[in-house]
Amino acid sequence: MKIVVIGASGTLGRAVAAELKTRHQVIEVGATHGDHHVDVTNLPSVERLFHEIGKVDAVVTAIGKTHFGPFHEMTADQFWIGLRDKLMGQVNVVLAAQHHVSDGGSFTLTSGILADEPIRDGVNATTVDLAIEGFVRGAAIELPRGIRINAVSPTVLEESMSAYGPYFRGFEPVTAQRAALVYCRSVEGAQTGRVYRVGY
Amino acid sequence: MKIVVIGASGTLGRAVAAELKTRHQVIEVGATHGDHHVDVTNLPSVERLFHEIGKVDAVVTAIGKTHFGPFHEMTADQFWIGLRDKLMGQVNVVLAAQHHVSDGGSFTLTSGILADEPIRDGVNATTVDLAIEGFVRGAAIELPRGIRINAVSPTVLEESMSAYGPYFRGFEPVTAQRAALVYCRSVEGAQTGRVYRVGY
Ligand SMILES: NC(=O)c1ccc[n+]([C@@H]2O[C@H](COP(=O)([O-])OP(=O)(O)OC[C@H]3O[C@@H](n4cnc5c(N)ncnc54)[C@H](OP(=O)(O)O)[C@@H]3O)[C@@H](O)[C@H]2O)c1
Ligand SMILES: NC(=O)c1ccc[n+]([C@@H]2O[C@H](COP(=O)([O-])OP(=O)(O)OC[C@H]3O[C@@H](n4cnc5c(N)ncnc54)[C@H](OP(=O)(O)O)[C@@H]3O)[C@@H](O)[C@H]2O)c1
Repeated sequence: MKIVVIGASGTLGRAVAAELKTRHQVIEVGATHGDHHVDVTNLPSVERLFHEIGKVDAVVTAIGKTHFGPFHEMTADQFWIGLRDKLMGQVNVVLAAQHHVSDGGSFTLTSGILADEPIRDGVNATTVDLAIEGFVRGAAIELPRGIRINAVSPTVLEESMSAYGPYFRGFEPVTAQRAALVYCRSVEGAQTGRVYRVGY
Repeated sequence: MKIVVIGASGTLGRAVAAELKTRHQVIEVGATHGDHHVDVTNLPSVERLFHEIGKVDAVVTAIGKTHFGPFHEMTADQFWIGLRDKLMGQVNVVLAAQHHVSDGGSFTLTSGILADEPIRDGVNATTVDLAIEGFVRGAAIELPRGIRINAVSPTVLEESMSAYGPYFRGFEPVTAQRAALVYCRSVEGAQTGRVYRVGY
């Protein structure tokens, strides 16, 4: 398969790209690294990307910022960060790429454990992660030509514990490699409209 | 209790206000109707509203537009409609009003059956409705002073079947009055972080 991984230079995306490369042609995309560059928050930029790349069999997104901070002092602008970046970034990819994915191809997006397990300072992430799961649920029944769409929702990665550890006390991290395996279940499997939880 | 109902002139909000009025002081708010006016999509406008009203015991929101249309031709701007209006409209209310709700008071937001039951043309609504439920889940553990937050998720209302019927073939509608009852379970009950499903 010809597979586009957006966020392929990230902690998670690097492992996903490595795992998929053992069996497939992987096109690595990032904001500044990779074979192609894109700004997922900008739909015309994503449209340009897929005009460059042409027909593909699968698209994986492993991108997305959210805002962490106490709710009692959160501003609307801070709340918009996750909506604009992690949510609309991935929505833009599906909006643009649906016309370039081959029959029976697939999208695999990334949500996260905070969808199910809220933490202090994490309301923006919990909102965005569940929004992504709602998007997958809604898009799954509309995509034509047997195109599938799923989300992978990993717990915190071992590789990120030095940065995010204080938010995730008592959470058991998984390696990026173990999370990456689950992206293959979505890309190479047959299900649609699913959320694959990893490590919880 | 002193209860603010935002969207009190709407199909759903009118029934909620009527039900709550049998036992409580209700302040009716709308974009153009009611005791006070507000634009929930604009945080400063919501802040002004609560400076005018002062301390309240409960806030109910029964507002929110989403975009309906085929996914294969949806634009990013159309997708933004539900995020800006139904999602951020209600988030703005909680951001602003958290400082004006009394100890042990509550927020009750509105999602909808499309969170759980996707329909054709409804991906924006399914995304937004689940986002609202994620917001409730995240905010519930952060709100101080025993303030609670829940969402009510009604199926389609009998009163709206003439407008939305074709989207909801095979769905059993409920009256706005029956949906309104459930808002009282949130406002007058003791739970937090919950989604109350109505009619499904
Ligand atoms: N890390 C974790 O523990 C963890 C756990 C669960 C879920 N997740 C989720 O997984 C996703 C990725 O997390 P991560 O930790 O791997 O992030 P990361 O290490 O910061 O990597 C981000 C990746 O996204 C790319 N990127 C950033 N902004 C972009 C834009 N506007 N357009 C296109 N590409 C952009 C970066 O490209 P360049 O390098 O080229 O700039 C990079 O490849 C996030 O949604 C996160 O919430 C992470
Ligand atoms: N109707 C249904 O079958 C149904 C079923 C499930 C869920 N829902 C959800 O329930 C909510 C309300 O639906 P509805 O059918 O009752 O809507 P509606 O009849 O159109 O009423 C909308 C209400 O919101 C107010 N409003 C509109 N824009 C506003 C703004 N920017 N700022 C403040 N107030 C604003 C309106 O005020 P003015 O009158 O003053 O303009 C009106 O009171 C929506 O989220 C909808 O998705 C509805």
